[in-house]
Amino acid sequence: MPSSPTEQPAPSDQLRALHQDFAHQRLVPLWTATGDLMPHHPAPRAVPHVWRWGRLLPLAERAGELVPVGRGGERRALALANPGLGGLPYATSTLWAAIQYLGPGEQAPEHRHTQNAFRFVIEGEGVWTVVDGDPVAMRRGDLLLTPGRHFHGHHNATDAPMAWLDGLDVPFTTAVDAGFFEYGAERITDISTPARSRSERLWAHPGLRPATGPAELPASPLAAYRWEHTDAALTEQLALADEGLPGALGPDHAAVRFTNPTTGGDILPTIRAEFHRLRAEAEFVPEREVGSAVWQVFQGSGTARIGEQAWRVSRGDLFVVPSWAGLSLAAAEELDLFRFSDAPILERLDLATPLPKRTP
Amino acid sequence: MPSSPTEQPAPSDQLRALHQDFAHQRLVPLWTATGDLMPHHPAPRAVPHVWRWGRLLPLAERAGELVPVGRGGERRALALANPGLGGLPYATSTLWAAIQYLGPGEQAPEHRHTQNAFRFVIEGEGVWTVVDGDPVAMRRGDLLLTPGRHFHGHHNATDAPMAWLDGLDVPFTTAVDAGFFEYGAERITDISTPARSRSERLWAHPGLRPATGPAELPASPLAAYRWEHTDAALTEQLALADEGLPGALGPDHAAVRFTNPTTGGDILPTIRAEFHRLRAEAEFVPEREVGSAVWQVFQGSGTARIGEQAWRVSRGDLFVVPSWAGLSLAAAEELDLFRFSDAPILERLDLATPLPKRTP
Amino acid sequence: MPSSPTEQPAPSDQLRALHQDFAHQRLVPLWTATGDLMPHHPAPRAVPHVWRWGRLLPLAERAGELVPVGRGGERRALALANPGLGGLPYATSTLWAAIQYLGPGEQAPEHRHTQNAFRFVIEGEGVWTVVDGDPVAMRRGDLLLTPGRHFHGHHNATDAPMAWLDGLDVPFTTAVDAGFFEYGAERITDISTPARSRSERLWAHPGLRPATGPAELPASPLAAYRWEHTDAALTEQLALADEGLPGALGPDHAAVRFTNPTTGGDILPTIRAEFHRLRAEAEFVPEREVGSAVWQVFQGSGTARIGEQAWRVSRGDLFVVPSWAGLSLAAAEELDLFRFSDAPILERLDLATPLPKRTP
Amino acid sequence: MPSSPTEQPAPSDQLRALHQDFAHQRLVPLWTATGDLMPHHPAPRAVPHVWRWGRLLPLAERAGELVPVGRGGERRALALANPGLGGLPYATSTLWAAIQYLGPGEQAPEHRHTQNAFRFVIEGEGVWTVVDGDPVAMRRGDLLLTPGRHFHGHHNATDAPMAWLDGLDVPFTTAVDAGFFEYGAERITDISTPARSRSERLWAHPGLRPATGPAELPASPLAAYRWEHTDAALTEQLALADEGLPGALGPDHAAVRFTNPTTGGDILPTIRAEFHRLRAEAEFVPEREVGSAVWQVFQGSGTARIGEQAWRVSRGDLFVVPSWAGLSLAAAEELDLFRFSDAPILERLDLATPLPKRTP
Repeated sequence: MPSSPTEQPAPSDQLRALHQDFAHQRLVPLWTATGDLMPHHPAPRAVPHVWRWGRLLPLAERAGELVPVGRGGERRALALANPGLGGLPYATSTLWAAIQYLGPGEQAPEHRHTQNAFRFVIEGEGVWTVVDGDPVAMRRGDLLLTPGRHFHGHHNATDAPMAWLDGLDVPFTTAVDAGFFEYGAERITDISTPARSRSERLWAHPGLRPATGPAELPASPLAAYRWEHTDAALTEQLALADEGLPGALGPDHAAVRFTNPTTGGDILPTIRAEFHRLRAEAEFVPEREVGSAVWQVFQGSGTARIGEQAWRVSRGDLFVVPSWAGLSLAAAEELDLFRFSDAPILERLDLATPLPKRTP
Repeated sequence: MPSSPTEQPAPSDQLRALHQDFAHQRLVPLWTATGDLMPHHPAPRAVPHVWRWGRLLPLAERAGELVPVGRGGERRALALANPGLGGLPYATSTLWAAIQYLGPGEQAPEHRHTQNAFRFVIEGEGVWTVVDGDPVAMRRGDLLLTPGRHFHGHHNATDAPMAWLDGLDVPFTTAVDAGFFEYGAERITDISTPARSRSERLWAHPGLRPATGPAELPASPLAAYRWEHTDAALTEQLALADEGLPGALGPDHAAVRFTNPTTGGDILPTIRAEFHRLRAEAEFVPEREVGSAVWQVFQGSGTARIGEQAWRVSRGDLFVVPSWAGLSLAAAEELDLFRFSDAPILERLDLATPLPKRTP
Repeated sequence: MPSSPTEQPAPSDQLRALHQDFAHQRLVPLWTATGDLMPHHPAPRAVPHVWRWGRLLPLAERAGELVPVGRGGERRALALANPGLGGLPYATSTLWAAIQYLGPGEQAPEHRHTQNAFRFVIEGEGVWTVVDGDPVAMRRGDLLLTPGRHFHGHHNATDAPMAWLDGLDVPFTTAVDAGFFEYGAERITDISTPARSRSERLWAHPGLRPATGPAELPASPLAAYRWEHTDAALTEQLALADEGLPGALGPDHAAVRFTNPTTGGDILPTIRAEFHRLRAEAEFVPEREVGSAVWQVFQGSGTARIGEQAWRVSRGDLFVVPSWAGLSLAAAEELDLFRFSDAPILERLDLATPLPKRTP
Repeated sequence: MPSSPTEQPAPSDQLRALHQDFAHQRLVPLWTATGDLMPHHPAPRAVPHVWRWGRLLPLAERAGELVPVGRGGERRALALANPGLGGLPYATSTLWAAIQYLGPGEQAPEHRHTQNAFRFVIEGEGVWTVVDGDPVAMRRGDLLLTPGRHFHGHHNATDAPMAWLDGLDVPFTTAVDAGFFEYGAERITDISTPARSRSERLWAHPGLRPATGPAELPASPLAAYRWEHTDAALTEQLALADEGLPGALGPDHAAVRFTNPTTGGDILPTIRAEFHRLRAEAEFVPEREVGSAVWQVFQGSGTARIGEQAWRVSRGDLFVVPSWAGLSLAAAEELDLFRFSDAPILERLDLATPLPKRTP
């Protein structure tokens, strides 16, 4: 019931009394509900917004100097707080995005939760995230997973600080009251620093899987998606496009989706992750989507138009696209973007499409 | 990160300045977040609560006298507003429940939306809900579906008023910004009053389906689940239990789930519906569930203990069980209950289970 | 490699020697294989054929006089032996069909096997098939299931004989070497004669299922699909067609599929079953199918054209449609037909469609 | 109904006449069927057998001299003819295996069929298989796919001959009458010789997929599984095992399954493919399987015991394990084996398991 109801009863003492009785009985009359309740199309409170890497990183560094990391606070993370969401540390109505920062030699203690998480590395290296005992190196361009229910902590094995993007489904699991949390070891259980995680050694072979183990897992068992593979896949798509062959999203637009190798579907039950590469001068105007997304510029620069506003964006900048907001991207120079969204939630619940066209 | 963080930096001017800069950049530091963010177990704002049919119905009747129903207001419905949810017309964090009331000869105009809906009839008859042009009679004990994207309106073809329960996923679709709404015909398109809907004529034959049409539909194509079938199924389960045969939930507890005959799964992508019958003196103490439910007593009486509180409940009373709240039911006399929940949301997104036990 | 290979080497002593050496090493050269190996389209050895009920029943009766039924022989069943299959007791390459006959008071002892089975009753009543201890009455028009791995036996509780159709996937399970068989009790474990089986009491409620038990079962847990429901569904479809509403296969052609209520899919992993009703004068010319089917006329009469041949068929007559054979049915009077096929095998293995059209 | 029926009627003139009438009406009485019909456990006609690479290759070479390859004969392939299958060119009841041989500069013309196919390269290189216009290099250790319905031909771009293993589901598609075949171009449409196929350029990136295209495909879109990846995966599994970590089949036994990256399931709807590595002295005694398999030794040597017989096997030797036959493998030196089976057929049709244990 969107917009201003037209048939409202005339005010009267009786009506006022009735409304008081409603309130007393914990009832809300539908006919006075504002258009918020069931709008003509998604009307997210979250708004389009851009966070500048050039501002985030210095703040993270200052936090590194002033704020210790340890049990209780758990993580030195700065959450993007969408201006439309009243100060909540949520990037969109369903997605959490934060910059996490770990100084030389620091550790973020182990814990686990039902919330699904990943990390994406915009720059730097030297931190290992330890997932159920498996140390996973974090390097520029990598996507690292911590599916729900896995213990995890991080440690910086170098003498340089490192910052990265954390993505989680915290707002969503909070909205559906499904979050469980548990502390783990205060000190990282395995501080070894292998170049490849055990998970990759088992799962990062194209088209192959161990012959044992469950046929399907709800989240990807592959803990790390390395930049060298992502970059190669994007490069090949554009080369194929140049040869007139299919595979890319367009002649100047390559895009890969990160998948769960046991199902071919999304990496996490609630989160889709993709990487896009637009050639210089290329534009991308996707269909409007039900559901929200967060983008981070990995390299290059261009313009992001979201709804009515446009922003010039470059390396490290983050922007959010609320549900049903129009988006267009234009690359000034070759533009690489990481993107994550809540698409699996909408698709699995048959909510990813708008109303069908009316048949006359 | 639940409970009181232990390692907080000492207050200082530098820190205060840093926090101001965070706020300026729309950032929220994780380490100051309250335990709300990631609690040890679901900590729903929704609370256990009971609404009394004996109070609801008179209020609906008074609304019937004072408030017209028509385009704009759309429905004369009184939504249960959970006391924990700040006045929002939501029964739980994901579920909408309302009493709808239609006087003699009245019509609620047609519209459609992506939100999924059903009606459950606690008493009375005489209203037809018209779903995409198919008039569906509503009678005591019936469950009637209006899956998302179907046009629907209601009309009362008798000279007696009728009230019933509406269930929807409005809070959930709002939380994920997936709601679309569209007006339809102002007057009901088909005011005929057949005893059986077209949908039932096609689909209400046990184990049979038309040989044509899509193999699977996201929501049930069966618009009406009639009380005579529900009652028979419950009766048979208890009779089988008396014969020492399996099928019932317990020796004194029958339970059926309403299904989508094209998949065998839940009736709607976001809502599960069940009917329970407890014999006099029987108790039911289910495992705690992730996700919330609304129950309505159909007949009989007993006690519902939710969390720390207990209520005596009888015919028509509604109560909500927030996520992870403990529930126990005790039947004073034979107790029939209708129940709906958000279980499909949690299950499809792998959020229906808590953290596994720790392996020592 | 269909039809006559064009490039064959000239005969020579060397070639003859080579072929001898092939044979010695258990090798067969592909280039001499006849067109049978990979024909342009399915070239089943099974041929269209009709078996007359008027001939089958007297033979079954004579067998009833001369041949006892008991452990070892297990069943007094006469299998349809497709004339193209060299005397094998197979109706088609994948399907078994037989007339089973049980005299007054007789019992067919219990056994179980991985092969999936059903019974369809063309006439009579009085036999109970006991499936894992659940006695299931058999009556005219009923479809009764014995999914693989369930113990089952039959007993005739009356003083009249009874004959019916057995359908199994024996040829298929033999072809893939997947058959296991085990004897059960020599005497029927439960000779009670309830009108409704336990299975129906639990599962034959439209759109309902017990709230407990596995979400999905590979075969239907509903042991009996009663004629009254099948007939009602067909009657409704034609009535809807008369009202200009969708659901039937055509204006004069109703068709239902029997389903597994836990999945909405086929009753058995390897067998699809349907019931068709053609009004007098109606014709049905389905698309050619990959996979074979057996039809039995339940009532009425008409003409079945299969491939190049046409047969006049009436009550009880059985006919087979081999893979990719053309079929057309014409009803002289209202014509009711039961049909089963191997469609699930082909569909689950992506073999149900021919080659796509060539893109020029 | 296995083994000798015990209750047979005494011979008589009446019975003889009845049997004649059965035959006349194309009926076979079940009670006289031999134990073949429904044996206690799978009783495949296919028998364990070994084909020696040392014998196959010279025969293929001789065929190369005497037999041209071209339209009509289509392929210079020598099919393994299981000694139990009466001279049919079938390795098992469901699987085809053949050695194909292509001389310098030769071409095998293009065609397509619904039968699914793959190639596995035991040695050599220099042939490109062109799948729907995509040239795919074949090199030692590679697995190359030609899923059903794709045009394909082969050409040898070098001046050395090449032989490899072809695997298909021809016996199965014949058994279910689902084969369609069509000629394509007589000359290979693209004789370029890229090191990587277009398919690999799109799909051979671990955990990544193009963001466009169908969510799921019935067969793998990845045309080549390269030895370097298979070898690396096996090597890592054994290294993990040495570190006491899970993933391998056993401490001395690594095994990978080739998968369809769009589903995580088997490469082809009807065929499973795996690669096994046994360390010197290791043994492997798998559970007996319903369904058949073909193994080829890739390198190393050892002993294969199948049923009652044992064979010493080494590089290139092929052996078949019929359904339900016992298998044990013992490695004399490190033993690498390629294996393909019909497991997807059995699993998708719920036929992969024997009868459950009896509950007493």
